[in-house]
Amino acid sequence: MPQDPTYRPTDVRMKGFARRWTVQDCLAWIDQQTPASVTETVALADANGRVLGSDITSNVSVPHFARAMMDGFAVFASDTSGATTYNSQSLKVIGQSLPGNPFDGEISHGHCIRIMTGAPMPSDVDAVLPVEHTVIHDDTIVIQGEVAPGKHVGLPGEDIRSGTTVLQQGRQLRPQDLGVLSSIGVSEVNVVKRPRIRLIITGNELLPPGSTPNDFNITDANSPMLSALIARDGGKVIHPGIIPDNPDSILEAFKADAEIILVSGGSSVGQEDHAPRLLAEHGSLDIHGVAMRPSSPSGMGTFDNKLVFLLPGNPVSCLCAYDFFAARAVRKLAGRSAQWPHRILTLPLARKLVSTVGRTDYARVSIQDGMIEPIAISGASVLSSTTRADGFVIIAEDLEGFARGAEVTVYLYE
Amino acid sequence: MPQDPTYRPTDVRMKGFARRWTVQDCLAWIDQQTPASVTETVALADANGRVLGSDITSNVSVPHFARAMMDGFAVFASDTSGATTYNSQSLKVIGQSLPGNPFDGEISHGHCIRIMTGAPMPSDVDAVLPVEHTVIHDDTIVIQGEVAPGKHVGLPGEDIRSGTTVLQQGRQLRPQDLGVLSSIGVSEVNVVKRPRIRLIITGNELLPPGSTPNDFNITDANSPMLSALIARDGGKVIHPGIIPDNPDSILEAFKADAEIILVSGGSSVGQEDHAPRLLAEHGSLDIHGVAMRPSSPSGMGTFDNKLVFLLPGNPVSCLCAYDFFAARAVRKLAGRSAQWPHRILTLPLARKLVSTVGRTDYARVSIQDGMIEPIAISGASVLSSTTRADGFVIIAEDLEGFARGAEVTVYLYE
Repeated sequence: MPQDPTYRPTDVRMKGFARRWTVQDCLAWIDQQTPASVTETVALADANGRVLGSDITSNVSVPHFARAMMDGFAVFASDTSGATTYNSQSLKVIGQSLPGNPFDGEISHGHCIRIMTGAPMPSDVDAVLPVEHTVIHDDTIVIQGEVAPGKHVGLPGEDIRSGTTVLQQGRQLRPQDLGVLSSIGVSEVNVVKRPRIRLIITGNELLPPGSTPNDFNITDANSPMLSALIARDGGKVIHPGIIPDNPDSILEAFKADAEIILVSGGSSVGQEDHAPRLLAEHGSLDIHGVAMRPSSPSGMGTFDNKLVFLLPGNPVSCLCAYDFFAARAVRKLAGRSAQWPHRILTLPLARKLVSTVGRTDYARVSIQDGMIEPIAISGASVLSSTTRADGFVIIAEDLEGFARGAEVTVYLYE
Repeated sequence: MPQDPTYRPTDVRMKGFARRWTVQDCLAWIDQQTPASVTETVALADANGRVLGSDITSNVSVPHFARAMMDGFAVFASDTSGATTYNSQSLKVIGQSLPGNPFDGEISHGHCIRIMTGAPMPSDVDAVLPVEHTVIHDDTIVIQGEVAPGKHVGLPGEDIRSGTTVLQQGRQLRPQDLGVLSSIGVSEVNVVKRPRIRLIITGNELLPPGSTPNDFNITDANSPMLSALIARDGGKVIHPGIIPDNPDSILEAFKADAEIILVSGGSSVGQEDHAPRLLAEHGSLDIHGVAMRPSSPSGMGTFDNKLVFLLPGNPVSCLCAYDFFAARAVRKLAGRSAQWPHRILTLPLARKLVSTVGRTDYARVSIQDGMIEPIAISGASVLSSTTRADGFVIIAEDLEGFARGAEVTVYLYE
């Protein structure tokens, strides 16, 4: 196999990073650099989980008419006054009101109409007598209990009053929110636009996802993983395929129409690591080398107003660098909370967990018998360690680790 | 407006449910009636969040060759024996190994090659000397530290050994699982098929979702809400539109090609409640009337091997009955855990929460200053109460409620 023509045995750039940025430096950079979100209009049916771009104020009251809240009879409350089982009173039933089909007539004292839950309440009468409190004889009911004025009558605006702000900008829409929006006549919703995330997966050794590994080639694990993570965080993936590992192809890919670029592979300081050099030359490489494990060969910068994240090619490092850094920018641009979306648990450690002051550690763990068990094999290349893990524990840079039995927070994978 | 020709003022079926089933009865019925899941094959890219239909065993080792775990030099460990800063030794660099582009030659003692992380390890040599432990002079490196045999060499199968079961049947696939599947050459995955859930939304007063309410008509809030909930639970919604509220149309809709039918509206015992009667006559109405609040006019049964859930039309009742009953069947058919998917928190109650023994209560609550605050307006028709709420609290049928300050579990809406 021919040697790479760029081969120089004494490339000084093999000698490691000049400095290491802290995780906090990186988060501050992301918060400063991430641009404001933009919005778009989507159909109500597509709005679940989207983030509202503006407040929603109702133009209608819900309900917009008085309605019965029980099945029974619409009556004058005064006609029931003093009624008991031993002193029953009678009313004549002269018609009915059904949902969408109101009673069309007048009701005078001594009369009533049958009414169903949700049906329009005639304006003459003022209470609903539940069917359970009556005895029915042909077209007459015998009343065995009093009912107060207004009882079991739902008033207009009881659910939503016209002019009320029902949901606020920034709200991530839930299923019942769609119900409320529908009920006030909203058929399209202004939501935060999904940021477009362009993947640049590089590596001459890489085969497309799902290929059988052959010769000295391995299969790209990062693009399927990143695509699912980006969807989780509210982004839209652009991934036209593996990019040849040469400067021209990578530079061309940097020009993609997107808000964020994720480069996986070639993120370190070796001579084959083109992306950091290209970013420094043609854009801005603001951070390169982070005091964390794994993922230390991570970087971030900008290119034509796009945020660029350099993620290590090793799958565990890639996952970790995405979750620490790129994910935060994706979520912020998607209008979501910058915080990790993982569910958390606080449990005692079954064994001590060691780190080094000055470095942030991302330790995969499993949960066994209510205790946190660190996963022994922790190489950055062992992606299967993250499928055996239930989640991860963060050891902050000011800590040497945690003692056995310490209560620590686990971020759960899901 | 003409009276409904079916109008009879003394319909005995207005008199309420003959008996009430407990929530536990309903859950037992669901667990007994829900059929086994079936599986289908989907592309890897579409498999996130899906449930594996069978175990996945790897046919390959990952990696399938020995590789360097650091940037540095591939050496004979014995050539570094005794090297220190004060007793340095030299090796000649005769080539390099890059990822996907191995060194094509032989290496003898006194020689080494430059090697990058992930690159194939030549079989001649047995260790990687990290670049940090060397000084480079032209085509020679000066070694300033020993390295043990096998050091920084990743062995074949280190991540995944051929023949290993990497993921088990029933696993709900996570982003990193897709990475692992990709890396072992899996491009299509056998997963549990999404159950098809046919919505039958009835009510003559209903306008299609997002319509502006008019006259005595209200807008359907339930189909947008149910559609989002069903998607959450792994089901596929079939909803061709609002069904006219007459027996023929509803019976025809029961014949839909689906695994589960949800009827919203007309679920009670009034003469306009067609669905329960139709189910009893043409299928099986196994449960009707549940000791819970809201949602007591819920029912369940079967029609042509389909599970049928009768959900009250009132939106809060509909949400509650879906979450208690239909959702469980959807999740089970989708291969997921029957348990509620909501995140939970345990917090003290700011005020007492009252219920009645013999009835299960679903109380909407908000979280304020770390305490649970019941939402005062709790009518089943007030859907906006569920958008103001952060979640709900269940008061089991054997309890009269909870005292102020009691620590209770909140199921969070999301």
